[in-house]
Amino acid sequence: MTAPYDEINPPPRLLMGPGPIDADPRVLRAMAAPLLGQFDPVFRRYMDETMALYRQVFRTENRWTFLIDGTARAGIEASMVSILEPGDRVLVPIFGRFGHLKREIATRVGAEVHAIEAEWGTVFDPQQVAEAIDRVRPKLVALCQGDTSTTMCQPLDEIGRICRERDVLLYVDATASIGGNRLEVDAWQIDAVTCGLQKCLAGPSGSAPITFNDRVEAVVRRRHHIEEGIRPAGFVPGEGPRIASNYFDLAMLMDYWSDKALNHHTEATSMLYGSRECARILVEEGLDAAEARHRAAGQALASGLQAMGLTLFGDQRHRMTNVVGIHVPEGVEGEAVRRSMLEDFGIEIGTSFGPLHGRIWRIGTMGVNARKQPVLRSLGALEAVLIRAGLALPRGEAVQAAMDAFEGARKTAAAA
Amino acid sequence: MTAPYDEINPPPRLLMGPGPIDADPRVLRAMAAPLLGQFDPVFRRYMDETMALYRQVFRTENRWTFLIDGTARAGIEASMVSILEPGDRVLVPIFGRFGHLKREIATRVGAEVHAIEAEWGTVFDPQQVAEAIDRVRPKLVALCQGDTSTTMCQPLDEIGRICRERDVLLYVDATASIGGNRLEVDAWQIDAVTCGLQKCLAGPSGSAPITFNDRVEAVVRRRHHIEEGIRPAGFVPGEGPRIASNYFDLAMLMDYWSDKALNHHTEATSMLYGSRECARILVEEGLDAAEARHRAAGQALASGLQAMGLTLFGDQRHRMTNVVGIHVPEGVEGEAVRRSMLEDFGIEIGTSFGPLHGRIWRIGTMGVNARKQPVLRSLGALEAVLIRAGLALPRGEAVQAAMDAFEGARKTAAAA
Repeated sequence: MTAPYDEINPPPRLLMGPGPIDADPRVLRAMAAPLLGQFDPVFRRYMDETMALYRQVFRTENRWTFLIDGTARAGIEASMVSILEPGDRVLVPIFGRFGHLKREIATRVGAEVHAIEAEWGTVFDPQQVAEAIDRVRPKLVALCQGDTSTTMCQPLDEIGRICRERDVLLYVDATASIGGNRLEVDAWQIDAVTCGLQKCLAGPSGSAPITFNDRVEAVVRRRHHIEEGIRPAGFVPGEGPRIASNYFDLAMLMDYWSDKALNHHTEATSMLYGSRECARILVEEGLDAAEARHRAAGQALASGLQAMGLTLFGDQRHRMTNVVGIHVPEGVEGEAVRRSMLEDFGIEIGTSFGPLHGRIWRIGTMGVNARKQPVLRSLGALEAVLIRAGLALPRGEAVQAAMDAFEGARKTAAAA
Repeated sequence: MTAPYDEINPPPRLLMGPGPIDADPRVLRAMAAPLLGQFDPVFRRYMDETMALYRQVFRTENRWTFLIDGTARAGIEASMVSILEPGDRVLVPIFGRFGHLKREIATRVGAEVHAIEAEWGTVFDPQQVAEAIDRVRPKLVALCQGDTSTTMCQPLDEIGRICRERDVLLYVDATASIGGNRLEVDAWQIDAVTCGLQKCLAGPSGSAPITFNDRVEAVVRRRHHIEEGIRPAGFVPGEGPRIASNYFDLAMLMDYWSDKALNHHTEATSMLYGSRECARILVEEGLDAAEARHRAAGQALASGLQAMGLTLFGDQRHRMTNVVGIHVPEGVEGEAVRRSMLEDFGIEIGTSFGPLHGRIWRIGTMGVNARKQPVLRSLGALEAVLIRAGLALPRGEAVQAAMDAFEGARKTAAAA
């Protein structure tokens, strides 16, 4: 019988949107390795190494650093449903779409949710968060580091201190920012962090690294439970209410990832191979070097866009290194430009959500694409598409400005 | 900087346990393809093709046939949390560990759970299920088709009819059985089915295909909701209680997989490529041929084991085609045998759970390993290990018996 559909054979693309971006070929090669049984000693070693590598990525000593088998929001939900008991108060500072997502998830797990909102394109002054904490007295503060919907990066060091001083837990979603923006889990006193692979870590979506400290462990252990069917006689569960999700039960996942190796899900072997390789590539390059590379690429892209006469979106002092928002110019149809970028040049750039839908393009420089060639190629293509769309703009300047910026970054680095 | 750990490089293994088993190399190659943006027209086409292929795998016309981004139990939880409202009654017929898992998950989602239990190694008479339904009057019956913990395969055709006659929904977890055992979703009147890739579909764990019909759709739509942050003004949610999980909200996943393409998670690109290829391989071979191949391999394995003087576990009339349970012989240390199989022969076989722990080995013949060579290799190795362990057994008979069985199956097929 002939195959009902062709084999997977994607057309050539350069993924310069807000993620997913092109996977590092090393990650895809790692994922092509033969499978191992989940209790094979070699596979358990790969699991341990994955934990150790992500401790470096998160800059943490946290023992509990492992993977949730799902996309980035699986990590968010695992954190929320395991930390928050029904009725617990949570404060969600919202500065973009993924803050709304946290409020939504926290509501679903039955928490009493209080939100504060910052205008899209800005971040919070830590003092605003402190005041809200003093008013709400939450168990948990949950927010994004970087929210791709607005391109903003929330400074977290002071918020960590503020939360710790008030004995409030701090959960951070670093999906969009990790690997390209500074994140110091231990130094900044962040209690729990999750992320995904499909942004600066240059892997496919589908695995959500998580880390949490002993403060979160204590909260989760209170709800410790062993699954029916493998529960030993005489097991005494924690005194807290059972976690509403089996799949996202962090207490059971600790038992699975620890030396106990207590059966839970069947670990997603290929995604673990990929996650491990993402971290290995980043640690090999060095976190500081990767951050500098993302900053250089993002600044070069921004310089190029401005040289083209375009206006950047949001407070540029707090922009993530790895994604730039651009106002769609007056008289230009945003979606037609995106379509031409894709169809004529093979380059994907992003639109936006909610209040920014249709008004903002988003261009990412992440992972393997946080380099000179993808940036120059994208700027050249965008200029051509905008000229074709009838926009009057200074021709040939964008690529030159970006090349200047890359040279400047190189000289600064060499002088340092 | 040197890599802190070596690249992924698993030792050669033949995975003859209850799953995961060796992935088909075609699946791993598909997963190594470059990524695409999740709203790229080509990627949306791959999503549609994946839906169409799994309709064939499930033998269904159900429009709602897609993937949950997680391991097999992600599919179970998505079904339970979306179908069952808190307080709803559910009947769980338990004939092994994965029945207990269903009771556990249903309890966590707040349902009123009623269970009936069959002794491990047996299945239910449909009449027992009918009587329990008449007593409990549940909204949903949730059970496994095949439970790998006992190797049993529950006949479902009558149970489907019984549920439909009583207007009860029927959910089936076909993770362990699909692709190697007959499953007729529409003909047997099953309302929702989920599975995973890591058994007869010969893929890695990490993607959970799901299908459900309009009866389930109606139940889920009652709880329809659009996520905060992308919700249009004036949206009217369903009148039912909001689904407790964002990640597993089938109503939102329908919006994501339909032409609406409403943003939810970022689809796990590589896992989708792999899932699509698993289905493509199966449909290419033909479902009947794949089932016959699994039956032939399972029977050959069973013949070989019996020729070695070993005793099979459970009611052999209702054994899954793709996994055989064997009583660990008196005086033999089960774990030492498994270790020697792995270390000396590179072959993984399984232990068991709960009441069978340490008493039963489980050997799978699934996916690419449901073939003559892996079966003969495993039998030869097991015989050698058992001789070394001091067991008196008829030497050289096992492989011959399996070869006879394969020849018999081939002749039967040729005569048919």
